[in-house]
Amino acid sequence: MAASSSLTVSQALIGRTTGSHSGSTSKSDRLALPGFGLRTLAGRGIKSQSLRVAGSRKRVGTRSTTRAAAVETLDKTETELIEKSINTIRFLAIDAVEKANSGHPGLPMGCAPMGHILYDEVMKYNPKNYTWFNRDRFVLSAGHGCMLQYALLHLAGFDSVKEEDLKAFRQWGSKTPGHPENFETVGIEVTTGPLGQGIANAVGLALSEKHLAARYNKPDSEIVDHYTYCILGDGCQMEGISNEACSLAGHWGLGKLIAFYDDNHISIDGDTEIAFTESVDTRFEGLGWHVIWVKNGNTGYDEIRAAIKEAKAVKDKPTLIKVTTTIGYGSPNKANSYSVHGSALGAKEVDATRKNLGWPHEPFHVPEDVKKHWSRHVPEGAALEAEWNAKFAEYEKKYKEEAAELKSIITGELPAGWEKALPTYTPESPADATRNLSQQCLNALAKVLPGLIGGSADLASSNMTLMKMFGDFQKNTPEERNVRFGVREHGMGAICNGIALHSPGLIPYCATFFVFTDYMRAAIRISALSEARVIYVMTHDSIGLGEDGPTHQPIEHLASFRAMPNILMLRPADGNETAGAYKVAVSSRKRPSILALSRQKLPNLPGTSIEGVEKGGYTISDNSSGNKPDVILIGTGSELEIAAKAADELRKEGKAVRVVSFVSWELFDEQSDEYKESVLPSAVSARVSIEAGTTFGWEKIVGSKGKAIGIDRFGASAPAGKIYKEFGITAEAIIAAAKAIF
Amino acid sequence: MAASSSLTVSQALIGRTTGSHSGSTSKSDRLALPGFGLRTLAGRGIKSQSLRVAGSRKRVGTRSTTRAAAVETLDKTETELIEKSINTIRFLAIDAVEKANSGHPGLPMGCAPMGHILYDEVMKYNPKNYTWFNRDRFVLSAGHGCMLQYALLHLAGFDSVKEEDLKAFRQWGSKTPGHPENFETVGIEVTTGPLGQGIANAVGLALSEKHLAARYNKPDSEIVDHYTYCILGDGCQMEGISNEACSLAGHWGLGKLIAFYDDNHISIDGDTEIAFTESVDTRFEGLGWHVIWVKNGNTGYDEIRAAIKEAKAVKDKPTLIKVTTTIGYGSPNKANSYSVHGSALGAKEVDATRKNLGWPHEPFHVPEDVKKHWSRHVPEGAALEAEWNAKFAEYEKKYKEEAAELKSIITGELPAGWEKALPTYTPESPADATRNLSQQCLNALAKVLPGLIGGSADLASSNMTLMKMFGDFQKNTPEERNVRFGVREHGMGAICNGIALHSPGLIPYCATFFVFTDYMRAAIRISALSEARVIYVMTHDSIGLGEDGPTHQPIEHLASFRAMPNILMLRPADGNETAGAYKVAVSSRKRPSILALSRQKLPNLPGTSIEGVEKGGYTISDNSSGNKPDVILIGTGSELEIAAKAADELRKEGKAVRVVSFVSWELFDEQSDEYKESVLPSAVSARVSIEAGTTFGWEKIVGSKGKAIGIDRFGASAPAGKIYKEFGITAEAIIAAAKAIF
Repeated sequence: MAASSSLTVSQALIGRTTGSHSGSTSKSDRLALPGFGLRTLAGRGIKSQSLRVAGSRKRVGTRSTTRAAAVETLDKTETELIEKSINTIRFLAIDAVEKANSGHPGLPMGCAPMGHILYDEVMKYNPKNYTWFNRDRFVLSAGHGCMLQYALLHLAGFDSVKEEDLKAFRQWGSKTPGHPENFETVGIEVTTGPLGQGIANAVGLALSEKHLAARYNKPDSEIVDHYTYCILGDGCQMEGISNEACSLAGHWGLGKLIAFYDDNHISIDGDTEIAFTESVDTRFEGLGWHVIWVKNGNTGYDEIRAAIKEAKAVKDKPTLIKVTTTIGYGSPNKANSYSVHGSALGAKEVDATRKNLGWPHEPFHVPEDVKKHWSRHVPEGAALEAEWNAKFAEYEKKYKEEAAELKSIITGELPAGWEKALPTYTPESPADATRNLSQQCLNALAKVLPGLIGGSADLASSNMTLMKMFGDFQKNTPEERNVRFGVREHGMGAICNGIALHSPGLIPYCATFFVFTDYMRAAIRISALSEARVIYVMTHDSIGLGEDGPTHQPIEHLASFRAMPNILMLRPADGNETAGAYKVAVSSRKRPSILALSRQKLPNLPGTSIEGVEKGGYTISDNSSGNKPDVILIGTGSELEIAAKAADELRKEGKAVRVVSFVSWELFDEQSDEYKESVLPSAVSARVSIEAGTTFGWEKIVGSKGKAIGIDRFGASAPAGKIYKEFGITAEAIIAAAKAIF
Repeated sequence: MAASSSLTVSQALIGRTTGSHSGSTSKSDRLALPGFGLRTLAGRGIKSQSLRVAGSRKRVGTRSTTRAAAVETLDKTETELIEKSINTIRFLAIDAVEKANSGHPGLPMGCAPMGHILYDEVMKYNPKNYTWFNRDRFVLSAGHGCMLQYALLHLAGFDSVKEEDLKAFRQWGSKTPGHPENFETVGIEVTTGPLGQGIANAVGLALSEKHLAARYNKPDSEIVDHYTYCILGDGCQMEGISNEACSLAGHWGLGKLIAFYDDNHISIDGDTEIAFTESVDTRFEGLGWHVIWVKNGNTGYDEIRAAIKEAKAVKDKPTLIKVTTTIGYGSPNKANSYSVHGSALGAKEVDATRKNLGWPHEPFHVPEDVKKHWSRHVPEGAALEAEWNAKFAEYEKKYKEEAAELKSIITGELPAGWEKALPTYTPESPADATRNLSQQCLNALAKVLPGLIGGSADLASSNMTLMKMFGDFQKNTPEERNVRFGVREHGMGAICNGIALHSPGLIPYCATFFVFTDYMRAAIRISALSEARVIYVMTHDSIGLGEDGPTHQPIEHLASFRAMPNILMLRPADGNETAGAYKVAVSSRKRPSILALSRQKLPNLPGTSIEGVEKGGYTISDNSSGNKPDVILIGTGSELEIAAKAADELRKEGKAVRVVSFVSWELFDEQSDEYKESVLPSAVSARVSIEAGTTFGWEKIVGSKGKAIGIDRFGASAPAGKIYKEFGITAEAIIAAAKAIF
């Protein structure tokens, strides 16, 4: 990528360049800055030292090239101010945890130096308008250490974290909850805490940047250009999800992803020696990352800076900077032990730490010179954004179409009438599997939604998720929109959360067999909690998949997601309902959707509609009058056809039968009481439901006098039709149940 | 470990030594065998070649030592017979998939050579008594290739897979389901198919062997001594769970775990290049494994044999043998493509493959010489077992106590009166968190259950799971019983499945926060499906954990497991109920249990009992008569106390109130109608339930006229008491609800 043509004062801090992530030197790099005077000397060419891994005799990276850049050692006054700022971060964390008598002081105390350098020297952001599109992204994957980030946001001038917010840490209604939550605190990108999620989100953020940069940057304008930084700990490293996501990051060559591994050798149960003795460095080299070791993360500020420089110079690989730190650094009696991980230090140890670090201040105090030093971020951030805005205005003049598209991705505004692209069907349309109908919808939407991007966990040809007009998003074709996640469901979900939260107009979808939502449930829950619009395309949604057997046949999954807050569980029955499910999923800006889709062919039923789906439950056929059918048959997805067949039979016998499609319980719950009564009149207790899954939860719909037909055991390996019959998921069973109730 | 003193004929096959896994040579190694005549020459000392990884320039393993052993090239007739046997395996797979018109022929065709060598030359087992304790374990982690294993079991003489079973592949009621299922097919150790589970199960099997060997072997008698073999594919490698489990295997130094990585470069979506370009070799070296590359897995039989020899010689590390194969080997038009992965070849291609491999036989034909060759496994297996039985008889004479204990682990028979060890409590016992009460139970059981082994995913001090009388199971202290899983929930669950299925008397437990069952749900489901008695100790089971906030507070989890077949979801309310939950969990030989436990202190309530828990739901207090209370208040776990308080208030107002503890829905469901009616009389529709979780599913218990108090949103970050109040999980809310119903 070309270097940018001009740099402003605010970009002259180390690495803090708007348009350039090359390691090349620039005049402005030497500019003295008001209030701080940090100077950098780029391109000094320090020889790479042979990095050795602690506790291993393996050589990590035998690079013979010179390092791209280094930083001149700062003079004493400057270093003192930095130390003061770092100690401010430490004590804000200590004090907040102490006041709450709850929280995790150890990580902020150990990671304060890298936190300081990132937020004060490296990252570009606008504290007063955090949503500025081209900001650098930061993810604290070790989310329990959130006081680190709250302290940094506070110092940087974010209105979301004022002193009173720090004092309300972990309290009801505060902006400073126990773990970082994007929906609570302005300045937090993604919701972390469950370990490993954050680094995978960061991969999604970096993917988004690489993708959008490839699509919209021009030789004369790098309009998309930011880094993604992440701090992760030993816990994140142990989680499988991080290996999945990092394998993909290496595969995709996400050069602007820079992850700091807080290598403190302590986890909750004690020294990591008891469970974690692998060579992380070697593993990451295997994953295709560039690996750097900062041996002194506690006070080696220049080491950290040099590592960031080096990381930026490596453009074809993500970088892991292993930063060896002391957890609870500064605490004379608790540092380097698990006791400082997740509890307040206690008054006595807080005092001892104050003495030890020479910190005479009251709790929550920010020294004036530190305050003054950080105060530049507000004007600088505004200037960064203004400069980018001007750049965008130029871009817009030259590249009108691209600018409009990019804008829609930035704002999240959907193109007017986008939903008209969705296909509709009639009963005469050929029978088809909803997974195939889903592909028709995806391909129709691909044409009108510039932010649609996604793929499958190695099941694209089974999940039917390829957008035929696009190629594969790969290292060298990042402008494409079909993502190949490999067999990595959990990483896939979390990466999609990162994509969804990168820009409001990015609409990620991802796919696997419905049963394998079990592999990615923790990521799906974070989608729901963090209001990330991810579309989960989950095919092979019942025993209807047949011969693969019980390991592959979902039973309890529909219920398990209906029980989860803020997620739409949609199970369309045919073409119109599949289109409706996509309309709902795309329209739901602040919640994810799961589409459960069939492997087997289903007929297009009379009476189904997109509008019906939007109401969650609706009548597709009825031969009763006065809202008083003899019986109401309720089905979802592939079983709606069976309910319709049973209704035909019962009607032949003179019964007044209503058939209701119950495609989404959540949407139905949101309808008015009048509407609900019009579909499921309380006077009619004769109700039979049918669904090829657990009956758990169906009592709510069919009532104590009704009958729920379902499967309350594991599945079986046989052709689908045989299993349906053996399990009694048949029209005959409905008819028998109805007759027992009449 | 010392080499065994004597070897029998049946052990003379390569590596197939009962008592020795050293690479040393032995006289009997040269013995000619009836019917086959395979000869091995151990200790020939071939120089290790510099292994290079395909697609990478990294050197894998720069061992300068000579290989421990090698195998003499067989003469032509012998090789021809082996090829014939291997082709038999291939065509049994091809024919079965063709007949079912469903299945995965690609893997069996590619892995037939390693499969043949394992089952015919290496592994010790008794086809007619598969449960023989000291057998080698084999896990097909790439479970979709199950026809490989069915073919091998068939050839080896297992009664479970006769010709008619092969012909019934993937059909209703057959013994040859679509993926390997231990509960369907004798000879299958664990249930695989969901990728990555199998290799993690294998780690659990190998852990069990190492643990039991350390506990029971004596200098003069290695009574526990077997290997664990596993075949895993690219899909397994991509899954995070495999990295978690393999990191632990390396950490624990499971030297008798030998995993074959079927490196065929094809996954469902095509060439692995599109999503999987990491260096697996380097990653595994980082994980502390010994790595060997067999470049020609298609016909390089000697290479495979030599690799196994080498793997056995490395005793302090597990070994990954990367075997480069061609998926669908032998199919002239479909080999090396995804099209051979998961579909029948089709009649035309089957013919072409028959021609190509020179296979003139009818479908399902096993040539006589192949049959004859394999026929020795029945007598040999019986001899192996008989020899071991004799050895055990000797052992028993010398080491009576150990023998009795080991026997109970082998048979699964629990010591008489074991349940008397469980503590009981009175209302005067101090209030305590059920997680602490759980620890009291675990420590009481540790003294009486020799098979109890387990631990936590880096939360031992929060989950309260340490057995104080034991140390840590570690590489050099494998006889200990506290397992440190690190932050690897998914791997932990699957490893426990392996432990549970290693021996009927092993009772693994594992722990994390309840919300993080989301990370391990796929493994928990396999526990349920495969009837593995794993005890899931899940603490911090509600908003009651307080300040950690919504990422850590389970909401939908109780419902999600109540919906899952064959698993007990237990939520005890106090000491007696916690003891009851353990009694049930240990007694449930063929299903796993989840114990949801509180972080916060709870009082010991009058009326709770172990017997009550065994019924799932029971009355703990009642001031009504004639089974006609005015209202029934139903609570679980930490909310039972609140229900009891509300009852006290309502009784003061003259109401007849019954309080029911609903600790396990599944157990209640299993009671007689009479019993159910005695607890929840159908005439009493005034019912109020309270549970700090979703109300989803509670309609079944409280009925349409009742009221379920719960939480149908995500949690919040604040002190627990505050959240309970704000969310209305209070006695006041119960009283108000009851009054609205009366």
